Amino acid sequence: MNIIDLIEKKKQGRSLTKDEINYIVSSYMSGSVSEAQVAAWLTAVCFRGMSVEETAFLTEALGRSGKTINFEELSSKVIDKHSTGGVGDKVTITLIPLLAAAGIPVAKIADRSLGNSAGTVDKLESIPNFNTNLSTQAIVNQVKNINAVISSQADDLAPADKKMYILRNSISAVDSDSLLASSIISKKIASGASNIIIDVKYGSGAYKDTPEDAVALSKLMVNVGKFLHKSITAIVSSMEEPLGRAVGNSLEVIEAIRFLKGEINKGDLADLTYAIAVTVLLQADLFDNGKEAELYLKSLVNSGKALEKFRELIIAQGGAAEVIDNYDKFSLPCYKVECESKKNGYVQNINAHNISLALKELGAARDNSIKPIDLSVGIYLNKKSGEYVNKGEILYTIYSNDEESTKSAQRFCDDAFSINDTKPPVNNLIYKILSSKDEDDDV
Amino acid sequence: MNIIDLIEKKKQGRSLTKDEINYIVSSYMSGSVSEAQVAAWLTAVCFRGMSVEETAFLTEALGRSGKTINFEELSSKVIDKHSTGGVGDKVTITLIPLLAAAGIPVAKIADRSLGNSAGTVDKLESIPNFNTNLSTQAIVNQVKNINAVISSQADDLAPADKKMYILRNSISAVDSDSLLASSIISKKIASGASNIIIDVKYGSGAYKDTPEDAVALSKLMVNVGKFLHKSITAIVSSMEEPLGRAVGNSLEVIEAIRFLKGEINKGDLADLTYAIAVTVLLQADLFDNGKEAELYLKSLVNSGKALEKFRELIIAQGGAAEVIDNYDKFSLPCYKVECESKKNGYVQNINAHNISLALKELGAARDNSIKPIDLSVGIYLNKKSGEYVNKGEILYTIYSNDEESTKSAQRFCDDAFSINDTKPPVNNLIYKILSSKDEDDDV
Repeated sequence: MNIIDLIEKKKQGRSLTKDEINYIVSSYMSGSVSEAQVAAWLTAVCFRGMSVEETAFLTEALGRSGKTINFEELSSKVIDKHSTGGVGDKVTITLIPLLAAAGIPVAKIADRSLGNSAGTVDKLESIPNFNTNLSTQAIVNQVKNINAVISSQADDLAPADKKMYILRNSISAVDSDSLLASSIISKKIASGASNIIIDVKYGSGAYKDTPEDAVALSKLMVNVGKFLHKSITAIVSSMEEPLGRAVGNSLEVIEAIRFLKGEINKGDLADLTYAIAVTVLLQADLFDNGKEAELYLKSLVNSGKALEKFRELIIAQGGAAEVIDNYDKFSLPCYKVECESKKNGYVQNINAHNISLALKELGAARDNSIKPIDLSVGIYLNKKSGEYVNKGEILYTIYSNDEESTKSAQRFCDDAFSINDTKPPVNNLIYKILSSKDEDDDV
Repeated sequence: MNIIDLIEKKKQGRSLTKDEINYIVSSYMSGSVSEAQVAAWLTAVCFRGMSVEETAFLTEALGRSGKTINFEELSSKVIDKHSTGGVGDKVTITLIPLLAAAGIPVAKIADRSLGNSAGTVDKLESIPNFNTNLSTQAIVNQVKNINAVISSQADDLAPADKKMYILRNSISAVDSDSLLASSIISKKIASGASNIIIDVKYGSGAYKDTPEDAVALSKLMVNVGKFLHKSITAIVSSMEEPLGRAVGNSLEVIEAIRFLKGEINKGDLADLTYAIAVTVLLQADLFDNGKEAELYLKSLVNSGKALEKFRELIIAQGGAAEVIDNYDKFSLPCYKVECESKKNGYVQNINAHNISLALKELGAARDNSIKPIDLSVGIYLNKKSGEYVNKGEILYTIYSNDEESTKSAQRFCDDAFSINDTKPPVNNLIYKILSSKDEDDDV
């Protein structure tokens, strides 16, 4: 087998076999195939696409390129949840304690922020001493002990995915559903999850612009799941505006804590958290219908059990659990600037992409530089879509460490809000749910 | 400027500016842009193409990435000639002494064999001690002294082209007219040639399948020449069957010597050599019409002046000039196998691609391995298209060092010949000549 022939084959639009894809991944890891050759093949994949089978072959080759976590000694199936990334998306932090409190073991392998994407690892690192860098053995032990873990991808899990992910980002090979799907699912294969829940976002703050595009990616992932006999559920949800009101690392953790305390029981953050959790509970055959499951989940929040699970998780991972009771224990920004509305009216929309640009200005998200990000800064959306605001009333609040960046963030935020007299229609947060357990041969 | 943005821009099919292309080439050379990033950009170029302007920008950036040879102190314009590669193509070796004998200074920067391509450097190295690795200063001096030089690309000439050429071959990025054109012309810019003659071949033994494809590449090169104010002439010629009768390194040098001795004065090798030489003489305003120019050139061969120029060239480059008088001074192969025709009839065609495969079997041409090539082996075509052969008469002769490879080469050669009863029509060797001096705004 020869890499030059395989690059040419893909350039011509032909499908590679399992052996050929295994050859590329293993030769890439051994160094007998160069970064440049893999870059050329990845670029050809961006142009030509891959079939479901090829995507599945790549997923397996990446997923099995290092150690794989084995949860077989646990009686329940272990869940992992992933989001394709959005602004203000802290659902991992609300969902994992809630599911764990419901008796579902959850092992979340999380990422750092990239582009628009929320990075759960960065967010949790705003909790002093929280260790997101666990060994595979520590991950298994913690799930056994407390049902929940949130860690970054250990070096020995799917190392080929890690290597290829860095390469893809350096060559702008991120716009391929097949590469994205195989990267996401390979990590989940390595991390030993039996049930994989993927929140596939569309809209101004997401990787996918339209619900149709998000459905296409979801179908691919679900079909890869079928091919690999893995349970994969894709929840297609809107990221037209930021999720919840807080955007920025520590601010988002505080909002998640407030949800777990029962202080936030309506709105998009609560709705999406419960919708995903209900789906998991129904799939686990713990309830017959969604209503009952949701009532049960709400009781876990209202009784404080979900919050206690989060406390256990923080302590297990070495973090300062007192942040739960005292938000001043987070590192605090210097400035808090309350920005008023310039007119009366209903908020029609808050463009998530503009908010993400504001966030970058503040230093809360990664651009392509390697500058460390500022975990203390962010934006709080005092008003969200459908809410009425009076001229002079606070529309949003900027938390910042720098006057200059505050001003440019403010410009992006002002551009993000559209306000007028008519009450906007309620947007559907969840567009569609697809699952590899669905009966259809091909979803 | 950011390479990731530039890769994305090309992936989207947009044209890069001169500054952007200069940035890619200079960052590639400085190492601030990785091989993988350049590989991704090159692959995107293969899919999206480049405009004439972009191709010209790349040509200049590559051509000016190192030293450039300056022939300005010479009174005449210096010629360089290039062939896009074909089987049995030894026209460089016949043409350069002939032009130099006619008073035209010629500095030929030559390549090694690659794939189907003839490699003049390899061929000349079959002459004992012939030095093809001259410094830029030695190249200039030799042109001043004897009007002719044939050398490989010195390390300091267009080093970015050299680096990118190796990369392109490792990632199958060879199927792009823009990349090919910029690579060819950049070397000529660096080597200081004022008039560039490019023999663009089409047919079974060439990079381009059809005359139309060869014309498209020729137009691009001629238009790049116009854009850069360089005189470029493209001669579109057939490579459906091998050029001349000898194929293989030392065998081809012997055939070239026989041409220079006046022993071969008809057939495709003589026709193409004279046609190109006439074009050069007319462009240099040395003659008013082609007939006169051709008669003059033939007189240079018949008087022995062209051969003497080749002798001077060999001596100037340290080679054993006695090969001219005694072919046994070339390293000799062990076996000579004369292969007979299995039927009576006219040779219709000799598929050049099959002959090149036979040549690879014998070890006379490079495949993707780094095995050194055998300069002594090859094939002699005792019959060519349009000639009649009787059953049992010698059709071709294999020169080889290995019985096994002889057999497989023989199979490819047998497949290459098509023979039947009707006399085939005469093929036009030259399809078209295009020049950047042509009046049309766009050829």
